[in-house]
Amino acid sequence: MSILVVGSVALDRVETPFGVADGVLGGAASYFALTAALFDRVYMVAVVGTDFPQTYLDLFRQRNIDLEGLQILPGKTFRWTGRYHHDMNTRDTLDTQLNVFADFHPRIPENYLSADLVFLANILPTLQLEVVQQVPRAQLRVMDTMDLWIRETRAELETTIRHVDIVLMTEEEVRLFAGVPSLRLAVRAIHRLGPRWVIVKQGPYGALLFGADESFFAAPAYPLEEVRDPTGAGDAFAGGFIGYLSRLPADQWNSAAFKRALVYGNIMGSFVCEDFSVNRLLQVTPEDIAARYAEFRAFTHFDPDWR
Amino acid sequence: MSILVVGSVALDRVETPFGVADGVLGGAASYFALTAALFDRVYMVAVVGTDFPQTYLDLFRQRNIDLEGLQILPGKTFRWTGRYHHDMNTRDTLDTQLNVFADFHPRIPENYLSADLVFLANILPTLQLEVVQQVPRAQLRVMDTMDLWIRETRAELETTIRHVDIVLMTEEEVRLFAGVPSLRLAVRAIHRLGPRWVIVKQGPYGALLFGADESFFAAPAYPLEEVRDPTGAGDAFAGGFIGYLSRLPADQWNSAAFKRALVYGNIMGSFVCEDFSVNRLLQVTPEDIAARYAEFRAFTHFDPDWR
Repeated sequence: MSILVVGSVALDRVETPFGVADGVLGGAASYFALTAALFDRVYMVAVVGTDFPQTYLDLFRQRNIDLEGLQILPGKTFRWTGRYHHDMNTRDTLDTQLNVFADFHPRIPENYLSADLVFLANILPTLQLEVVQQVPRAQLRVMDTMDLWIRETRAELETTIRHVDIVLMTEEEVRLFAGVPSLRLAVRAIHRLGPRWVIVKQGPYGALLFGADESFFAAPAYPLEEVRDPTGAGDAFAGGFIGYLSRLPADQWNSAAFKRALVYGNIMGSFVCEDFSVNRLLQVTPEDIAARYAEFRAFTHFDPDWR
Repeated sequence: MSILVVGSVALDRVETPFGVADGVLGGAASYFALTAALFDRVYMVAVVGTDFPQTYLDLFRQRNIDLEGLQILPGKTFRWTGRYHHDMNTRDTLDTQLNVFADFHPRIPENYLSADLVFLANILPTLQLEVVQQVPRAQLRVMDTMDLWIRETRAELETTIRHVDIVLMTEEEVRLFAGVPSLRLAVRAIHRLGPRWVIVKQGPYGALLFGADESFFAAPAYPLEEVRDPTGAGDAFAGGFIGYLSRLPADQWNSAAFKRALVYGNIMGSFVCEDFSVNRLLQVTPEDIAARYAEFRAFTHFDPDWR
């Protein structure tokens, strides 16, 4: 099948207790696309400036990512600067220069309209809606969002949520959206708008999958020895989750398949944290992924007996 | 087998957004004993004042808990007052009156010396050491601790750690103890002192089990709809973990058994949160526990295939 992603492509400066990376490839669409492309063909809808390095364009192309929907506009590429705290989980945004991303208006090429799976990375809900409405044949529509849109464009966000199958949020975002501390009750507020699944991202604690049918699945995080740079982990998670599903016929997207997809999401999120920017993603092999999947089973499964 | 616990018995006042409970049974040894006694015989070493309600003494006795090691001294029982925040995870201690607990010196009755499993709940490390040295035939020694002892009695704490098989800490305590942000590396600092297993409690995210042989197991938390009062969850966890193992012959305490024990710990921790004080523990049946165990398997297990 094929996967369409709309979102940001950026040049990042990331500071961690372990080092600094400057001018490196970043943005939700970059992390997502480079991950999902390990599984299937990816169509990218995004914008960069004329300063965007040719090497990164070449990289996307080499990696099975179609760039017909990537606009290259006069001006500078979106730049983000962040600094991680000692715990490597919390971070401060030191600087954001939207540049050409400020007026981003997604443009969907004709041959993207056949995409089977769509990932609406974190952009303005109205733009997410515009995109998803142009891909009517999509069989799986997944959206991310952020606290800013929950606070400032609530009505638009709700409208977009009504048009997707799966909502991806951090646990803080779910609670903020619903206004209740119980995660389980908060998730129901999202299900009531229509999505069949809600995925709650818990950073270093893994991810939870809630079905509108009250089904539940929990996948802990992979126990990394060292987190070098967690930037993009949520988007790599989405890339693993959606990428895995795209390899299955849609009639096999049952509850068991969604569980496996959640684990693939966790796996890809864990790889990304092992190095700065997208570096680790460029090295990871199918064998690495399969080995980590086997490890996940070993450290989460236990025997049924009760004595 | 039989289980010895040394720790606090208290009268608590707990305030949550859902209500207030005052003068209710609390203390680590109470939560642990009432949980572990659902699995096996418990010997309690603790102290209360003459104001301690007879009904609670009767309750312990009815519940398979031996009180020969419970000192009843002139004065008042340890009193703790806490208030939970809206998220039901963080809390403030509003008042602590140690009373007779201030000069607590554990006294181990003769017939407790045959205990097979020992739980050193959170008390001064020197007292924990004193107890564990008096029960030389114990086949499993488990200790809890707290940030105060890590900061203020570091040397004594390390000595006690060298005398136990399993250390139970929150993830904040593990990081504080080792002084490194990586949980996996921090845990190794504890293993180097001798314990075969380290259990990292993660509150609403579940628990992790690290073996000195680098083995690893992760159990997420049960997704409660409502947390009414999380007080004692860590001690109920220990009660479920140790209680389960006490029902197995020691030669079956292998890695698979420890995984199952961790799940029973999580289950008992989840029950405790459903009501104030020990109330939920008094209602829970073996069928409730078995049902939740089956649920845990259903929401953590996934298929092996890679397509």
